[in-house]
Amino acid sequence: MAAIQPEVINNPRVLSERLGALRREGKTIGLVPTMGALHEGHLSLVRRSKSLCDVTVVSIFVNPTQFAPGEDYEKYPRVLDADLACLESVGGVDFVLAPAPADMYPEGFDAHVHIGGVTRRLEGEFRPTHFDGVALVVLKLFNISRADTAFFGQKDYQQAAVIQKMVRDLNLPIDIRVCPIVREADGLAMSSRNKYLSESERKEAPILKKSLDLAARLVSGGATDAAEIKYRMRALIETAPSSAIDYISIADPDTLEELDAVEGSAVILLAVRIGTTRLIDNMILP
Amino acid sequence: MAAIQPEVINNPRVLSERLGALRREGKTIGLVPTMGALHEGHLSLVRRSKSLCDVTVVSIFVNPTQFAPGEDYEKYPRVLDADLACLESVGGVDFVLAPAPADMYPEGFDAHVHIGGVTRRLEGEFRPTHFDGVALVVLKLFNISRADTAFFGQKDYQQAAVIQKMVRDLNLPIDIRVCPIVREADGLAMSSRNKYLSESERKEAPILKKSLDLAARLVSGGATDAAEIKYRMRALIETAPSSAIDYISIADPDTLEELDAVEGSAVILLAVRIGTTRLIDNMILP
Repeated sequence: MAAIQPEVINNPRVLSERLGALRREGKTIGLVPTMGALHEGHLSLVRRSKSLCDVTVVSIFVNPTQFAPGEDYEKYPRVLDADLACLESVGGVDFVLAPAPADMYPEGFDAHVHIGGVTRRLEGEFRPTHFDGVALVVLKLFNISRADTAFFGQKDYQQAAVIQKMVRDLNLPIDIRVCPIVREADGLAMSSRNKYLSESERKEAPILKKSLDLAARLVSGGATDAAEIKYRMRALIETAPSSAIDYISIADPDTLEELDAVEGSAVILLAVRIGTTRLIDNMILP
Repeated sequence: MAAIQPEVINNPRVLSERLGALRREGKTIGLVPTMGALHEGHLSLVRRSKSLCDVTVVSIFVNPTQFAPGEDYEKYPRVLDADLACLESVGGVDFVLAPAPADMYPEGFDAHVHIGGVTRRLEGEFRPTHFDGVALVVLKLFNISRADTAFFGQKDYQQAAVIQKMVRDLNLPIDIRVCPIVREADGLAMSSRNKYLSESERKEAPILKKSLDLAARLVSGGATDAAEIKYRMRALIETAPSSAIDYISIADPDTLEELDAVEGSAVILLAVRIGTTRLIDNMILP
């Protein structure tokens, strides 16, 4: 079977018109927002969209408003040709929106979105303007596509929580699906930023997942004291010589408020620098 | 012909579902956002919506987020029964959305929208949080209704400019129609706040429109110096003993940047307190 190449569109207005025509035919639209540098994690979202929606749109846009000065906006990998080949190999993607920054933020652009509550802790403390930028670009992509369903990875757990909060608070007519983390064979959560790791750092990086597995074993063995669990995770991570922990959190899965005791459901989230590369990971405890 | 009473809905989600069903039948939807206390200005928007759209929705909601502490949120007229009678007399309104504050801003609500540029001057200087609140509620109403077209009055000229900027910057899939100011016989622009005027203040209030007419006469007589025109308007307004001018502006119709000379198109905007009642008015110069 010949793989069908997606139609690549730069201009958001053109995509809106194309999708409007399909919507009037009764087609449902699935949106997979990405920053490109696609890996198997993204492709799992694409497959999910294809199984649920008539039309699948993948956006590829390294969004400047979610990077702070000094972060990795400039060096973030931009590999559109490889991404398109990747999507072609999956097949069934109808449109790729690949705008330039000026297509999304033209001269005179001056709009800002802030979602409170769930944005303040964890990533919000280390990257205080990050989620405003994410909310802004995602809101624009929702409006451009008028998608019925949008697909996000659980790897960015707090991001998914922010988007779900925005959908509720702004009455957005879209269904959000959060899809499981896809991991390398050694447990490292797939991420476009894994490319930044040196060979030796790459060998240390699975320590994040190992610390989550340790926590899961402790909890299934009866541990409930969040401080004790975090202490044990921290001790394990610190055996990796290039590691520096930004945070380890055991939190309510909805509000992301810190928990003292693991009694009902909980999510463990962590951010760890391995050398100069910042990695995040998480696990939902049943 | 028996007038048909609109269906009154409090819950935004219920309205979304009702409109979703109509949209799937191919019906177009018009939205007239109001704070109630309806007058002929609002009704002109309703008639415009009826003439352009299959389904007309009027929202009636005194939106707390667009009032600052000390403004007239508490005393703003709330007369839902009279408003419904008014809409019934026009006929053809399909739905009235009349939510309680908790329907729009439930416990835990924490979303914020800021549109820059055009919000900063004029009303933005005197009511610095006003347009953030307007943008937020209008964005929510657009999402709840997924209207094809929304109707706003030119009386709130800067508000209409803010909404149009928001639509562009957030890629909102909606057409904005700004409809002419409707005036009382003596020229006073219709406003729900005119009810606050005492009998003697009401007699002074047409001075706003008289000053705009003076400016139009000066310009059609060849005047171009904005400072001179504003000086003459100010002198006229100050003949009204209860008047206090917040601003008189001669500005670019799109950016609302102040103009030194009236050469191309321009808009004159003013805000004047008559006693304790703050009135606004404007006129577009051809």
